[in-house]
Amino acid sequence: PPGRKVLIVYAHQEPKSFNGSLKRVAVEELSKQGCSVTVSDLYAMQFEPRATRNDIVGCLHNSEEFNYGVETLKAYKRGGLSSDLIEEQKKVQEADLMIFQFPLYWFSMPAIMKGWMDRVLVQGFAHEFPNCYDSGLLKNKLALFSFTTGGSKEMYAKGSINGDIRYLLWPMQHGIMHFCGVKVLAPHICFAPEYVSEEKRKDMLIAWAQRLKTLWKEEPIICSPEWYFK
Amino acid sequence: PPGRKVLIVYAHQEPKSFNGSLKRVAVEELSKQGCSVTVSDLYAMQFEPRATRNDIVGCLHNSEEFNYGVETLKAYKRGGLSSDLIEEQKKVQEADLMIFQFPLYWFSMPAIMKGWMDRVLVQGFAHEFPNCYDSGLLKNKLALFSFTTGGSKEMYAKGSINGDIRYLLWPMQHGIMHFCGVKVLAPHICFAPEYVSEEKRKDMLIAWAQRLKTLWKEEPIICSPEWYFK
Repeated sequence: PPGRKVLIVYAHQEPKSFNGSLKRVAVEELSKQGCSVTVSDLYAMQFEPRATRNDIVGCLHNSEEFNYGVETLKAYKRGGLSSDLIEEQKKVQEADLMIFQFPLYWFSMPAIMKGWMDRVLVQGFAHEFPNCYDSGLLKNKLALFSFTTGGSKEMYAKGSINGDIRYLLWPMQHGIMHFCGVKVLAPHICFAPEYVSEEKRKDMLIAWAQRLKTLWKEEPIICSPEWYFK
Repeated sequence: PPGRKVLIVYAHQEPKSFNGSLKRVAVEELSKQGCSVTVSDLYAMQFEPRATRNDIVGCLHNSEEFNYGVETLKAYKRGGLSSDLIEEQKKVQEADLMIFQFPLYWFSMPAIMKGWMDRVLVQGFAHEFPNCYDSGLLKNKLALFSFTTGGSKEMYAKGSINGDIRYLLWPMQHGIMHFCGVKVLAPHICFAPEYVSEEKRKDMLIAWAQRLKTLWKEEPIICSPEWYFK
């Protein structure tokens, strides 16, 4: 609906890729609805995935023994995080919905996107004990993992070799988003787009646009072990 | 035993950290046994986690539309991967055992280590359909995930808020290592070293050294959904 803010965190090297098309479809459909859409195009930004001392501007709290978690918490509190992180945190802060668009790499997100999680969602900003899970600091936001796979839907069925696709969503949806208080919408999974016909790929894009039309009416999943492991 | 080769892939920024101590203990104990030990110290190497066109030397197979999986397969076959990847693949090829030593970041490994998985374990080298899982190209090797957590053991018990720690091992142990044919030894988990006494931390280091003494007699886990989700 008009006024809603969406952040798309996008990790693909190639604009012409199917992931690129899924991203474009989302930008178009959500803009048409009057949402304000921001894209963090991680490869184009050459986003830094490594969590290092460079993320802290100025002096360290303890320069004798570098502790990334402690240092980024302290730096966050005094406004001393590096500018790329402050920039991303602003986008997160403003967003009602975050869409993560990526190809599945090794049962997870590509390292460049994992680096976004590691570096942007610092303690103090996204969570701070005891403010985690349902009282996480990013509560009242939504997240949606939209990704493509190499394997087919059958290969990701319960009892088949890759196991239920939901098994691998646990660290991302529960361990990251739920931990920060974010409510999780059902994932959007395009299975094996590289191995289907051009027509099937078009159908997949249409289905994504279709889903986005009524996205704001969706209820979040109940993010507990039952959803993942039944 | 003498002659066995071990690769330790290590991801911590601070040599004085507890992860640094765990790494040192492993190097010492395994060297004492006569093993030949190699360490990939990812932060010290400033290891690149991003999967990009730079990983391919020379011309692309298809420069119109960049596909990382296809390009790295082709480049691997013609010896055209970037030198940092060739270097890591040599270490993997020679290793009987790979130990991954890291602090748990967001229910998974730090992005710098995920990047090592994304970039080093390319198709053609580590797997090539139908050579995956039990017939993966890295069969006859062992892997062990050794990591520290922020949360306590109780917080990672079945039924508690973080869920069973085994849930989050599925993508790493099954989705990556088992997929490449590597047999997985039981993980070594040091819970919340930052929140226990110096004495307890010393006990943890002793326990790790102790385990390593009889490591070569261990049987791998049976890496199927039952182990993870019962």
